[in-house]
Amino acid sequence: MKTLLTGGAGFIGSHLADRLLAEGHCVACVDDLSLGRRENIAHNLGNPRFKFIKADAADARALEAVFKRSRFDCVFHLAANSDIRAGGDCPDIDFNRTFLTTYRVLEAMRKYGVKKLVFASTSAVYGEGGKAFGEDSGPLSPVSLYGAGKLACEAWINAFCANFGMQSWIIRFPNVVGPRATHGALFDFTNRLRENPRKLLILGNGRQKKPYLHVRDLVDGILFVFKRAKARINVYNAAGEGVTTVDEIARAAVSAAGLKNVIFSYTGGSRGWKGDVPRFRYDITKITRLGWKASMSSVAAVRAAARELCEGTCGK
Amino acid sequence: MKTLLTGGAGFIGSHLADRLLAEGHCVACVDDLSLGRRENIAHNLGNPRFKFIKADAADARALEAVFKRSRFDCVFHLAANSDIRAGGDCPDIDFNRTFLTTYRVLEAMRKYGVKKLVFASTSAVYGEGGKAFGEDSGPLSPVSLYGAGKLACEAWINAFCANFGMQSWIIRFPNVVGPRATHGALFDFTNRLRENPRKLLILGNGRQKKPYLHVRDLVDGILFVFKRAKARINVYNAAGEGVTTVDEIARAAVSAAGLKNVIFSYTGGSRGWKGDVPRFRYDITKITRLGWKASMSSVAAVRAAARELCEGTCGK
Repeated sequence: MKTLLTGGAGFIGSHLADRLLAEGHCVACVDDLSLGRRENIAHNLGNPRFKFIKADAADARALEAVFKRSRFDCVFHLAANSDIRAGGDCPDIDFNRTFLTTYRVLEAMRKYGVKKLVFASTSAVYGEGGKAFGEDSGPLSPVSLYGAGKLACEAWINAFCANFGMQSWIIRFPNVVGPRATHGALFDFTNRLRENPRKLLILGNGRQKKPYLHVRDLVDGILFVFKRAKARINVYNAAGEGVTTVDEIARAAVSAAGLKNVIFSYTGGSRGWKGDVPRFRYDITKITRLGWKASMSSVAAVRAAARELCEGTCGK
Repeated sequence: MKTLLTGGAGFIGSHLADRLLAEGHCVACVDDLSLGRRENIAHNLGNPRFKFIKADAADARALEAVFKRSRFDCVFHLAANSDIRAGGDCPDIDFNRTFLTTYRVLEAMRKYGVKKLVFASTSAVYGEGGKAFGEDSGPLSPVSLYGAGKLACEAWINAFCANFGMQSWIIRFPNVVGPRATHGALFDFTNRLRENPRKLLILGNGRQKKPYLHVRDLVDGILFVFKRAKARINVYNAAGEGVTTVDEIARAAVSAAGLKNVIFSYTGGSRGWKGDVPRFRYDITKITRLGWKASMSSVAAVRAAARELCEGTCGK
């Protein structure tokens, strides 16, 4: 299969590139390296089935040039502003990186007749609420600008599929952990503990509670859904069992670093930052019924990722 | 109240302008006259509380100049590509007119500290399905690019309210009929019967069935929700009782024109065009509980509008 992978030098994108190549597919990787890193794809640059194109997916002309050169069977669109918190102060970040990249990809697909789109969506489209969110839950009330951008993308994907004969697989990611991560609570804690192994600052009250998924499980889930789900538009939550509190993440970071007696201090409040969703649960009945199960629970994923970060396997 | 009304020279916008002025408010009307018409607002041009500014709401610089000159208490954002069918072939139409205008309005409100937004949304955000859609229904799967654009707007409005202390009233309009309409089945039928009073072409099979609301009732509902609903984000379906088939609309147009023995011909198929939703029902429990009721049922609204169109009261 000839694939276009946007955001392919990023945290999740580069793992997906590894997996697609391992399965024998061709990967044209588009990344502007604003959040992605060359070292995440360095090991693939010699592979004749891998091609790296430094380009901004929001740049219609640059993107269309990529579509003009190759006839893709499928687009995996992962390019986005992956740092939800950073988008909070400047709406244009998520407008351009999260939303506009998707609109440009859809338009290029329409113009060049590419029919299959796998899209990285997010739990942030749901917003807040006590219930476990299933794919059919409403209302969708995103709190973050990132969540708004992703929901806007889903809206346009729906209409493009209905109007232009496209098919889509929309996977709503939870918090993702693992090697090559560039942000998030576990990443921050591990770095802060390196600077100061005695004290750890925690944003919020530590009781924020959400599902975490290991990046290897996520990549497995994405391709499972892509291969098995046959509807015109396939929306799936991807997550393992359970949820993890921020305090548990802090303890996993401390334990993986081999530290003891670290004093936790808290900025307080139920949210880590504006736009943060303090508590979130997924209903994973739909993906479970399709036949997929994550190899690790939420807590196990966090602990494994904590160990990997400390072992310095970030680049692998 | 000092209001900014985008799309204020359009079909619905101009009726809303009339009503806001009648209630004693000031109205700054922004319209690029691409779909709006000068004759819809001509009768208000001498009113010192009314000001018309010819500008495209998607043009950030032009819009910010408007915000710079006045301190608005509330924005009524109605500017959009109101012709769903026209947007089907060129996604950029709904991208620019339906979606980007909203993003620009939100950004200008954020920059100039305007906190209240009344937004014209649509039943098209729901997509298709046999059930009666309530405000909390999911999934939201818009079929038309217009519906996608409006859902994208709602997503960003949610996040702007959560992050920047804004408050919003999102009214999901059904099909709207009445004087000054510029498109829609009733408008088309009335015009076709003027050209040929013996034969009437109907897109689809005539059995498409949806709720219709008279524009005067809609304007009343918008202001009712704005005054009574007090949440941070207030999402309301606005509709009267019942639904109307396309065949019933055709018969109303024929009857209002005083014609008899008109032969109906059909293009066939369940949809009038790509992106058309053949059957749609609203759940109006929420707006009913708030205390609002349309003065006319769906069928009564269509018949009244048919008479008004034939009586040539379009400009009034």
